Amino acid sequence: MNSITNDIKIIKNETSKINEVDFENLTFGNTFTDHMLICDYRNGAWEQPVIKAYEPFTIDPSAKVFHYGQAIFEGMKAYKDENDDVWLFRPDENHLRFNKSAVRMAMPEIPESIFIDGLKTLLNIEKDWVKFGNGNSLYIRPFMIAIGSGVIAQPSSQYRFMIILSPAKSYYSGEVKVIIAEHFSRAANGGIGAAKAAGNYSAQFYPTKLANEQGFQQIIWTDDATHTKLEEAGTMNVFFRIGDTLLTAPTSERILDGVTRKSVLDIAKRDNIATEVRPVLVEELVAAAKNGTLKEIFGAGTAAVINPIVGFSFRDEYFELPKLENSFALEIKEKLNNIQYKLAEDTFNWTVKV
Amino acid sequence: MNSITNDIKIIKNETSKINEVDFENLTFGNTFTDHMLICDYRNGAWEQPVIKAYEPFTIDPSAKVFHYGQAIFEGMKAYKDENDDVWLFRPDENHLRFNKSAVRMAMPEIPESIFIDGLKTLLNIEKDWVKFGNGNSLYIRPFMIAIGSGVIAQPSSQYRFMIILSPAKSYYSGEVKVIIAEHFSRAANGGIGAAKAAGNYSAQFYPTKLANEQGFQQIIWTDDATHTKLEEAGTMNVFFRIGDTLLTAPTSERILDGVTRKSVLDIAKRDNIATEVRPVLVEELVAAAKNGTLKEIFGAGTAAVINPIVGFSFRDEYFELPKLENSFALEIKEKLNNIQYKLAEDTFNWTVKV
Ligand SMILES: Cc1ncc(COP(=O)(O)O)c(C=O)c1O
Ligand SMILES: Cc1ncc(COP(=O)(O)O)c(C=O)c1O
Repeated sequence: MNSITNDIKIIKNETSKINEVDFENLTFGNTFTDHMLICDYRNGAWEQPVIKAYEPFTIDPSAKVFHYGQAIFEGMKAYKDENDDVWLFRPDENHLRFNKSAVRMAMPEIPESIFIDGLKTLLNIEKDWVKFGNGNSLYIRPFMIAIGSGVIAQPSSQYRFMIILSPAKSYYSGEVKVIIAEHFSRAANGGIGAAKAAGNYSAQFYPTKLANEQGFQQIIWTDDATHTKLEEAGTMNVFFRIGDTLLTAPTSERILDGVTRKSVLDIAKRDNIATEVRPVLVEELVAAAKNGTLKEIFGAGTAAVINPIVGFSFRDEYFELPKLENSFALEIKEKLNNIQYKLAEDTFNWTVKV
Repeated sequence: MNSITNDIKIIKNETSKINEVDFENLTFGNTFTDHMLICDYRNGAWEQPVIKAYEPFTIDPSAKVFHYGQAIFEGMKAYKDENDDVWLFRPDENHLRFNKSAVRMAMPEIPESIFIDGLKTLLNIEKDWVKFGNGNSLYIRPFMIAIGSGVIAQPSSQYRFMIILSPAKSYYSGEVKVIIAEHFSRAANGGIGAAKAAGNYSAQFYPTKLANEQGFQQIIWTDDATHTKLEEAGTMNVFFRIGDTLLTAPTSERILDGVTRKSVLDIAKRDNIATEVRPVLVEELVAAAKNGTLKEIFGAGTAAVINPIVGFSFRDEYFELPKLENSFALEIKEKLNNIQYKLAEDTFNWTVKV
């Protein structure tokens, strides 16, 4: 059952757990498919990628990923259309961003032949795990970790790239109330906020726990130096609708350049929704909430696609957002989903067939 | 050969590699002893610690440490005196700091019975690895990683605490020239700079690589917002001697509260060296270098103890430091070493017998 396709070695898993999975009741990111892709980097080069059974692997206790956090990842989704074809959404953007993250974390870049072709080969094997139907997707997690050993704070010389896959239902996180960060910060100028580096996420766990205890599901991060500019949420970029204009912060060293954010802006522009990409001030948001021009806030990211926010808190004041008839969030979400599921024409050429 | 001491399960390694190790030619952090300590956290509690053979372990590809960087560590040393007794230096400080890091990274704190008693038990088994002689030590690396699985950005519910040991010679890194950070940053207010979190270290690899390419071994980090205040180096706090006063930055959310830094300040105070703990400005340093009052810069940290710096660069200007007869760095290093190796009276009660 072993074969080599395009220089990818395939060792088929003899058993499948697909029949044990309840696809109607999936919690996000906890179920994995039968196979994964592994590719190691040693002696300055990427070795042959291998697709094999999803399973634990062994690693030295002194591996640099454990001590110095050299680890990056991506988040993507595969969708199925009514012809049983599997589609990716702007995968080149994720590949590019992965390599940008790699550079910032002093890790090796990975070629398209491994990231993109490896992913397609893996998805071909796992296509039964991509379920048809709106909201259904196969979440894709490419990641790279430093596996070289040694407890000295220096870049590793050995790395492991992996792709694992997790079936997902549409992401509904309940009503999301957010709090605007006044003390804690997610990223700094000259830091790693624009990289999808592992350390950026655990750094937010404690502040988010405190926010949760106060009844808020997420934090909207502000610039660390002045806490006056609205930046992004934990795993989403954020949009603000004031009047009929959609505002979002420009990307920077502190903000992840989200694929969903980009796509939202493009759809809005195409469909004549006014957009402004510029620093959005906390005081501007509060003023708009007070004078009634603030109509929507929503997050944009691969996992949730578009996540409407029902209210925000700033300095002990809570501002409830209005319930709208014509929500930009829902309108754009539907348009984006229709492109992803091949239900609408893809005028942007964003979708890629596996 | 299995036994239980103080609730620590001991599974002796039947073979030892100690005779294969060339103790005269060790590179830092690459050789490990025969045993390690492992203790897992599950269902809200720490399980029984186990001391067993140092070896790789298996872990799920979706373990949160790989994706979200939930990982912290400590660095300590054990020293041998002429009676063959093994000593630790201020281990309670490391235990305290470890738990502070744990809180900031939303990880469980660890009790003294595991961190301190576990370490002592492990060191008793490995005492032949601690070599007598100035400069020799056994470097101790306690660390904790999130082993719970699932690719959703939330704190893990399972953790692994480990202690691994690596014999070390005195740390000599050659002549150290540093460059003062003007663009990149290590930490931000409201961030995790004061925690010994894995992500803080890999974030510095790329800027440090760029500095290396320009001929500088290390970066002196400045505050991220203005780059006007001198903060610390990659794994060391920094001291500046202007005239006969020793200056160092106060600890903050951005700076690690180093045990060596603390001890240097205490020794200086005891021996009537004037110290000032206050923000040290880049412009002040440059002015002092120009008017000849800047006499020394040195790093202070467990690995190198005291690391004298020979010169620094700021905005394309390089400032060479004078070669001194009576260096504070060397004087304090000797005093600190003498306490650690039990060659001088420990008036501070810093040393703890294993
Ligand atoms: C910090 C952060 N911001 C924004 C996003 C949204 O990016 P994308 O739309 O590419 O998923 C993510 C990732 O998913 C993220 O981790
Ligand atoms: C960032 C940083 N600063 C300073 C230090 C020095 O601390 P200590 O003297 O406790 O080793 C360390 C650690 O070793 C460190 O990682």
